[in-house]
Amino acid sequence: MKPTNNRQIRLIRRPQGMPEPDDFLITEEPVPQPGNGEVLVRTVYLSVDPYMRGRMRDVKSYVPPFPLNEVLTGGVVGQVVESRHPDYQTGDLVTGMLEWADYSVSTGEKLNKIPEGPAPASAALSVLGMPGLTAYFGLLDIGKPQAGETVVVSGAAGAVGSIVGQIAKLKGCQVVGIAGSREKVDYLTKELGFDAVINYREESVPEALDKVCPKGVDVYFDNVGGPISDAVLARINYQARIPLCGQISLYNQENPEPGPRVQGALLINSALMKGFIVSDYQEHFQEGMAQLSQWVGEGKIRYRENIVDGLENTIAAFQGLFKGENIGKQLVRVS
Amino acid sequence: MKPTNNRQIRLIRRPQGMPEPDDFLITEEPVPQPGNGEVLVRTVYLSVDPYMRGRMRDVKSYVPPFPLNEVLTGGVVGQVVESRHPDYQTGDLVTGMLEWADYSVSTGEKLNKIPEGPAPASAALSVLGMPGLTAYFGLLDIGKPQAGETVVVSGAAGAVGSIVGQIAKLKGCQVVGIAGSREKVDYLTKELGFDAVINYREESVPEALDKVCPKGVDVYFDNVGGPISDAVLARINYQARIPLCGQISLYNQENPEPGPRVQGALLINSALMKGFIVSDYQEHFQEGMAQLSQWVGEGKIRYRENIVDGLENTIAAFQGLFKGENIGKQLVRVS
Repeated sequence: MKPTNNRQIRLIRRPQGMPEPDDFLITEEPVPQPGNGEVLVRTVYLSVDPYMRGRMRDVKSYVPPFPLNEVLTGGVVGQVVESRHPDYQTGDLVTGMLEWADYSVSTGEKLNKIPEGPAPASAALSVLGMPGLTAYFGLLDIGKPQAGETVVVSGAAGAVGSIVGQIAKLKGCQVVGIAGSREKVDYLTKELGFDAVINYREESVPEALDKVCPKGVDVYFDNVGGPISDAVLARINYQARIPLCGQISLYNQENPEPGPRVQGALLINSALMKGFIVSDYQEHFQEGMAQLSQWVGEGKIRYRENIVDGLENTIAAFQGLFKGENIGKQLVRVS
Repeated sequence: MKPTNNRQIRLIRRPQGMPEPDDFLITEEPVPQPGNGEVLVRTVYLSVDPYMRGRMRDVKSYVPPFPLNEVLTGGVVGQVVESRHPDYQTGDLVTGMLEWADYSVSTGEKLNKIPEGPAPASAALSVLGMPGLTAYFGLLDIGKPQAGETVVVSGAAGAVGSIVGQIAKLKGCQVVGIAGSREKVDYLTKELGFDAVINYREESVPEALDKVCPKGVDVYFDNVGGPISDAVLARINYQARIPLCGQISLYNQENPEPGPRVQGALLINSALMKGFIVSDYQEHFQEGMAQLSQWVGEGKIRYRENIVDGLENTIAAFQGLFKGENIGKQLVRVS
């Protein structure tokens, strides 16, 4: 039976601080018709990601701001329900940047078919998609972890951090996570093999770092920024590497507080800090995906997806990212 | 006639803020006698360098702190006056890390003979020594300037900055200096060929940067830190590189003020910031020296030395570094 109704989530107001439901509006329209060379995709999973908070501001960032009143776009896994593109058939599972909606129309060129693999299709939004590739390239290309080194990762139980720590273990490193609940600590140490995890809500991060990183920090994979990162940066070693992946602790600050200047610590340690976005590595995605897929297939990398049901719960799931609610990748199952 | 008296400058108190004369003591002792395998060197020039301020603190840094009451050590050009080492003869011009004194004893292994070249011996402490190599490796290895890019250098009239700007010009870049006097601005633009120089004491650095860097900043070679660097970092481009060479504006702060966190700017621009010290590149010194020597010989790189006379004026010359008094390398002629 052909669907007729399409719910869409629009950004109608730029959030101040934590995004609120009133910043968004769910509208209903007829399901769009694909034109020539286009396909109609039914959303199966959509991805809520911290970087999207940045796009909700009207300022220059690595991606342009979301326009007001338009339907939001993000990572989606979906199924082709109608194709007017020769490469796609009804039933194909695809992933791409699509609308936060029940249905989207896309040109075939902007989609990727999800290959058969060791994981379900949702993994195209987690370990075998953007978060997994972010972990892979940020850690290996910028962090360059060497066996025996100490690697610290903040936001350790998140979609990226949980993969970073496991890759660092595969490289023979001592891996220390920083996370915000006992459940996360247990997951990372007991299920993923982290050597130590600091619960920043219950422990003094500086004191805990002194205890679990007695040889200092060689690689700091930074997902959070702010005071947690200040504490790690005060303990870096000569020629430490700091991949900057995110600064989630600061994303909802309208007037970011100043902090200790990091240049001194970088200077006296000949240390490197580098920001990146996964698309910097676009040319190497196939390599990264192949390696991650192999590790997942071999059971060397495990991952978790935190799935909520219903497009109408997308905003709450997005808010949850900033409250530290999710373990692993936060997804919304739409259909 | 054999000398009998040796003046030595000792650190007797750790400076608070700007180093003061009372932090130091000039003592007199008999000229030391070289033992077997050692040489006696008469100091001709000694080098005062900003990094030495860091060594006057009792904290971990890239070099260990100076011990209290001991004679200070730094870069020296001198002449061998007595040799008990087979490789050195009386009259040889040498350079090395020696004492702030009229005479020092050194093992031969810790000295380098100054080769014949296009510049006088003092250049072993400036363009053909530590400052020149610092500029060379920091700019080329970390900054990686590409033709057509905009390179900004702070502390532009100093021993390092003035060489950085000229190498960047040789690489085809648009070069913007930041310096603190009209005389420095004139020197850099009229004599060294900088495309623009901002006088941070007379202009608003943010406004001036907007004017002279309309395409943003691709490489920022940072000698100074603090608010000047904050302004540059707010204007970096995608994949900008920031070699951190020094933070002279902060060296005399006992309780460094916080500042804007730089991670956000690095993150949204996939930018790299890296601290370094010239000794990171020790294995490549010969290459760097050969290239700098060639450029100096060809007149492609010019340099200036600001020379004061008399060991007794060393402290004033050292203080002058933090007041922005010198153009080019600050040296003290001792004999």
